[in-house]
Amino acid sequence: MVAVGSRGAGRAEAFGAEFAAPRRHGSYEALAADPDVDIVYVASPHPAHLAHTLLFLGAGKHVLCEKPLALNAAQAGEMAAAATAAGRFLMEAVWSRFTPGYRVMRDLVGGGEIGDVLLVEAEFGFRAPFDPAHRLFDPALGGGSVLDIGIYPVQFAHLLLGAPDGVTAGGVVGATGVDEHVVAVLRYDAGALAVATSSLRADLPGTARITGTRGSLEFPTSMWAPEVLSVRTPAAPVRIGGAADGPAPQRRIETPLTGIGLHYQVRHVHDRLRAGHLDSDVMPPAESVRVATTLDRIRAVLGVRYPGEAPIPAP
Amino acid sequence: MVAVGSRGAGRAEAFGAEFAAPRRHGSYEALAADPDVDIVYVASPHPAHLAHTLLFLGAGKHVLCEKPLALNAAQAGEMAAAATAAGRFLMEAVWSRFTPGYRVMRDLVGGGEIGDVLLVEAEFGFRAPFDPAHRLFDPALGGGSVLDIGIYPVQFAHLLLGAPDGVTAGGVVGATGVDEHVVAVLRYDAGALAVATSSLRADLPGTARITGTRGSLEFPTSMWAPEVLSVRTPAAPVRIGGAADGPAPQRRIETPLTGIGLHYQVRHVHDRLRAGHLDSDVMPPAESVRVATTLDRIRAVLGVRYPGEAPIPAP
Repeated sequence: MVAVGSRGAGRAEAFGAEFAAPRRHGSYEALAADPDVDIVYVASPHPAHLAHTLLFLGAGKHVLCEKPLALNAAQAGEMAAAATAAGRFLMEAVWSRFTPGYRVMRDLVGGGEIGDVLLVEAEFGFRAPFDPAHRLFDPALGGGSVLDIGIYPVQFAHLLLGAPDGVTAGGVVGATGVDEHVVAVLRYDAGALAVATSSLRADLPGTARITGTRGSLEFPTSMWAPEVLSVRTPAAPVRIGGAADGPAPQRRIETPLTGIGLHYQVRHVHDRLRAGHLDSDVMPPAESVRVATTLDRIRAVLGVRYPGEAPIPAP
Repeated sequence: MVAVGSRGAGRAEAFGAEFAAPRRHGSYEALAADPDVDIVYVASPHPAHLAHTLLFLGAGKHVLCEKPLALNAAQAGEMAAAATAAGRFLMEAVWSRFTPGYRVMRDLVGGGEIGDVLLVEAEFGFRAPFDPAHRLFDPALGGGSVLDIGIYPVQFAHLLLGAPDGVTAGGVVGATGVDEHVVAVLRYDAGALAVATSSLRADLPGTARITGTRGSLEFPTSMWAPEVLSVRTPAAPVRIGGAADGPAPQRRIETPLTGIGLHYQVRHVHDRLRAGHLDSDVMPPAESVRVATTLDRIRAVLGVRYPGEAPIPAP
């Protein structure tokens, strides 16, 4: 890391000192003008992703942008087009996709280990104390569970099944008008379903499960940073009268992370750039637009709209 | 068991011999006329529950009727009214509610162990070979996953949260027009959600989980006949960066069944009758009507209607 930028010199100094960044810019424009910066990791609040990404792309920088890429699919599409026009790399920081656990999971599913995927279930939830001034609850900062953490289970469903043909949801919208507690159901014409649960009210262990025609895979904790993968093949069910037998035995695969795990995506970006690519083959901008479209559709069902946002037609 | 009845003398003989029933009637009318019969367990195909229950109630018998009580809420309401008019006992055989696991679970939740209930999730799924002639796939026999096994997770949600204020679902309707693969989301104005998954396509372990403001309870297998209950208090979440810590430790409570477990409800019925009650306090007819209404609403979203059934307005 060669430089940091922030809205003020003091914040840039403090952050830069903490993480040993030699250059500390007191504005994003100054950072964009830094000739030694090749790629910028945009980690500003959600509603600022669009403007900041356009700023850096316009200055000839590559951009890794914190998830969600944007407030909605329209913004995400604008950012994707800007990256193409600028000839610069753009990726949404869906870091989970680059963890060892996801790579093992994709290899197993792709190799036919569990047959055809029928049901994908994933969740991310924690109990956040209600605070209307906190970004998670503030519509002006793109608050709500779906955009901030629901994106993890939703991108997981997309990774396995693609964009859904139907979207519905049940949810609880809180006092500030954002979705605090949501279960979304994605339907695929080919016969699969996905369930994406996100909550700022309920502590959930973060499980994810993929059930196929011949078995199932499960991340028993932290589906956004999995360290264990359980495999059941066949997915022998427990029927009435057979309760005492328990389910089919699990095969446990360890997929440890080094550190928090955010570095895997950084290495991917470097690898792609060094190989001459201007996008990721794991999380390309078009995929971000598809995921953002699903998030839009979930919010449309729940009636959650951010300030200044055009109405999203209900699915 | 003093007597059995069936559509034909041969079937009644065979079944009666197998289970040592001294009297074997070759018609339901003959069974209804048997003066030594006090209570009848109606276990005919779903669409026959209404007529058979009315027949036996009209003959002065008490009735324990296999789940689902009826094809829809209108029929269930008619049966409930008939029991009241006849002054006879009527209960839907939701046997799970009488198992030791459910009693421990209700005591814990009622005692405030996990705080206020925020999220109820339950599932029942197995992979049934597609056969248009099998009752599970035949609309004329009330086929589909929701009515046959979805009722287990749906009644579970009702037990904890009551009738929902909103119902939605994503589902796959198969070649015969019945719901083969369904995720239903129930929404409660007080701020809770429930997810009821039922499938004739996917093998699922039958988990159920109740997440509250201060912890969670889980049936890790066979939520319809649970033998283990896991308790997590507090339900400490795993946040980003804390993945390696794993979730809060579980407390495991054994709730073994004796036998398959269908006998618990039979004892309950006898206890209620001996105590002079004409309904159950655990699964009264009014509760069956509420559950049937939710099943109706799920089917309405999916567009599944049985032959001769009046249209159900979409929720």
